[in-house]
Amino acid sequence: MSVTAAPGWLASGVRAGTKPSGELDLALVWSSHPAVVAGAFTTSRVPSAHVQLCKPRVSSGLARGVLVSAGIANAFTGPLGLEDAYRVCDAAAKATDTPAEEMLTCATGTIGPRLPVDDLMPAIDAAAKALSVDGGDDASHAIMTTDTRPKTSVRTIDIGGRFITVGGTAKGAGMIAPNMDPAFAGPSDGPQGTLLVFLTTDAAADAATLRHAIATSVPKTFNAISVDGCMSTSDTVLLFANGASGVDVQGSDAFVGAVHDVLADLAYQVVADGEGATRVIRIIVNGAADEADAREAAREIASSALLKSAVWGNDANLGRIVQALGQADCKLDPDRLAVSMAGIELSRGGLETGRRDEAAAKLAAGGEALIEVDLGLGAGTFQFLTCDLTPDYVKFNADYTT
Amino acid sequence: MSVTAAPGWLASGVRAGTKPSGELDLALVWSSHPAVVAGAFTTSRVPSAHVQLCKPRVSSGLARGVLVSAGIANAFTGPLGLEDAYRVCDAAAKATDTPAEEMLTCATGTIGPRLPVDDLMPAIDAAAKALSVDGGDDASHAIMTTDTRPKTSVRTIDIGGRFITVGGTAKGAGMIAPNMDPAFAGPSDGPQGTLLVFLTTDAAADAATLRHAIATSVPKTFNAISVDGCMSTSDTVLLFANGASGVDVQGSDAFVGAVHDVLADLAYQVVADGEGATRVIRIIVNGAADEADAREAAREIASSALLKSAVWGNDANLGRIVQALGQADCKLDPDRLAVSMAGIELSRGGLETGRRDEAAAKLAAGGEALIEVDLGLGAGTFQFLTCDLTPDYVKFNADYTT
Repeated sequence: MSVTAAPGWLASGVRAGTKPSGELDLALVWSSHPAVVAGAFTTSRVPSAHVQLCKPRVSSGLARGVLVSAGIANAFTGPLGLEDAYRVCDAAAKATDTPAEEMLTCATGTIGPRLPVDDLMPAIDAAAKALSVDGGDDASHAIMTTDTRPKTSVRTIDIGGRFITVGGTAKGAGMIAPNMDPAFAGPSDGPQGTLLVFLTTDAAADAATLRHAIATSVPKTFNAISVDGCMSTSDTVLLFANGASGVDVQGSDAFVGAVHDVLADLAYQVVADGEGATRVIRIIVNGAADEADAREAAREIASSALLKSAVWGNDANLGRIVQALGQADCKLDPDRLAVSMAGIELSRGGLETGRRDEAAAKLAAGGEALIEVDLGLGAGTFQFLTCDLTPDYVKFNADYTT
Repeated sequence: MSVTAAPGWLASGVRAGTKPSGELDLALVWSSHPAVVAGAFTTSRVPSAHVQLCKPRVSSGLARGVLVSAGIANAFTGPLGLEDAYRVCDAAAKATDTPAEEMLTCATGTIGPRLPVDDLMPAIDAAAKALSVDGGDDASHAIMTTDTRPKTSVRTIDIGGRFITVGGTAKGAGMIAPNMDPAFAGPSDGPQGTLLVFLTTDAAADAATLRHAIATSVPKTFNAISVDGCMSTSDTVLLFANGASGVDVQGSDAFVGAVHDVLADLAYQVVADGEGATRVIRIIVNGAADEADAREAAREIASSALLKSAVWGNDANLGRIVQALGQADCKLDPDRLAVSMAGIELSRGGLETGRRDEAAAKLAAGGEALIEVDLGLGAGTFQFLTCDLTPDYVKFNADYTT
């Protein structure tokens, strides 16, 4: 289901040959009705050709489909790479009888090589022919690269007695430290990430409503996760609405909540499937001077190779949390710092409590590793998700070609 | 030799019991003549008690000795931890008949626990009694924590027909991403790192001359390396001069050059001995808009877990260099980017050259991994050193307690 859960949405996944494994590698998501769109894009200074193509089109607010190819990112490919992106996108528009400017395209995979456009052409036609309400699963599989499993999420909500559905799929396992520009939900500047996220809904919304939902949700979902601290050239979130339900969601908090929930669910799945990861680390910072400080503190902890290695070893290592906080660009008074791990207080009032072995034992019981920090300074709070760092991450990335 | 290479400098290393292994863990470096000092300290927001003690004393410009204990960092230990630092420092001053305010102290090891001051007292006396011109090696061993070997370096230079010597020792293998404040070479604010570096010289210099040497050298040596991107609470560089040579080095570029060379040599040794590392990665960025941009670009490449894993796998991965550059906060035009690895051009004018296998073969031959980037924008240049990321780094840090 996922992207085809909402009425009027069709999808497909086919083989184009861009994955050496021969698996599904080309996805198409398309609405049989005209649709509006909002999105957020990587802030990388080397945005992929596909990101360059998408940004002005998403600014227009009008689009009803996206073609996604996996295996080659079409990033760092210069003006010819941009031409390639337009060629495949135009072909997808033609194959679906869609106005060219209402089709979008994304790509994920190796940075550097050109897209094999001629090989893709017949596959694009095949993807258009295969479009179906049952095609969501194939699409979710086709967009995977180093993912071990597809990521999907669906919410159906009641708005004044009538129902609308928000469905989504995502891919991403490595090169994950998104810092997407949600201001770009509206026309603006700046992109970065290889995280791809597609949401579809049958809500009736204008582009401004979608932009508001993206701008509200992305900062606390996909911009609040990290696998390896490496932002990609291609990170993209797209939210499409085709209005098939006839339910206007302008000003609806419930709609924004549904978008947030689907994004949060998908973001969690991305972290849980992080390359080599065995567990999710949930970092909650409270008591910061403001939310920006709380985010910065949480992000630094999530970025620490030392801390992430320690969690893999079930080491309730207070010192590495303190080290990371010391590096954070936020207001901090060591004497007020309280830190807990796995629910066990490791420090209070800036001093160790001596309960490290207790916390280590709880960590060793498995499951999510919870780190809670109270800076004792104000009301700022933020939650960030990451995963442990394991030898498998290193081995995997010594072999794989990005 | 190292810190006792210059006349008038004595050192020792003894066992105090702060290393569970029972190895040498307390070092003393001391000049039989009064001496002047300059330094640079971590910019961590949680500076260790020892850093807090040292900063005002180093600001005064007068100090002739440093006591260094390894095993416990005495960081995040609150006001009582600061008292502990003063107690051991005062004891070292007393044992060497030095005015209290002319003695400094550093510590490295686990963050959180208090120093076992009572156990240290007899060891401090023993260290003072053991001071000797032959004590440099013991001191270099005693300051090690996860280091696999001591780091030492000596330069002797001719200034107008007379000789002066600069000798140094350093420790550090993990939690290495120093960002020390060299402005603090003079009175100022802000510290960070667990890298400890001690230089001694018989040059006749005032504190301003030493501060100039530190401010010139630290940014391009110890602030230009990273093992794991984790800045410590305790990073300290100290440069002492006792004037025993009678050779005034005020305004001497040769003196600054000698300090730079010793710091650069020690910084290289730290990276080469990085936890789990099998090789040094040398990143040279040219053609940046300015030096700050060049540094930022080089630092981002050095911080990429993806790139560092790829180097361990002898993968000449252009995409991961491009990814890291995209994340860097510097001016960048992808179409002008030239990247080489192991001397082989991987991209020119913003496009791949297709020589990846050639570069991979050269990488596989071993030795230093050289990455050269030309941004094609200006004259800014910077060199940064890091090491590869290996499964052993992760395993090591899943077991070890910082």
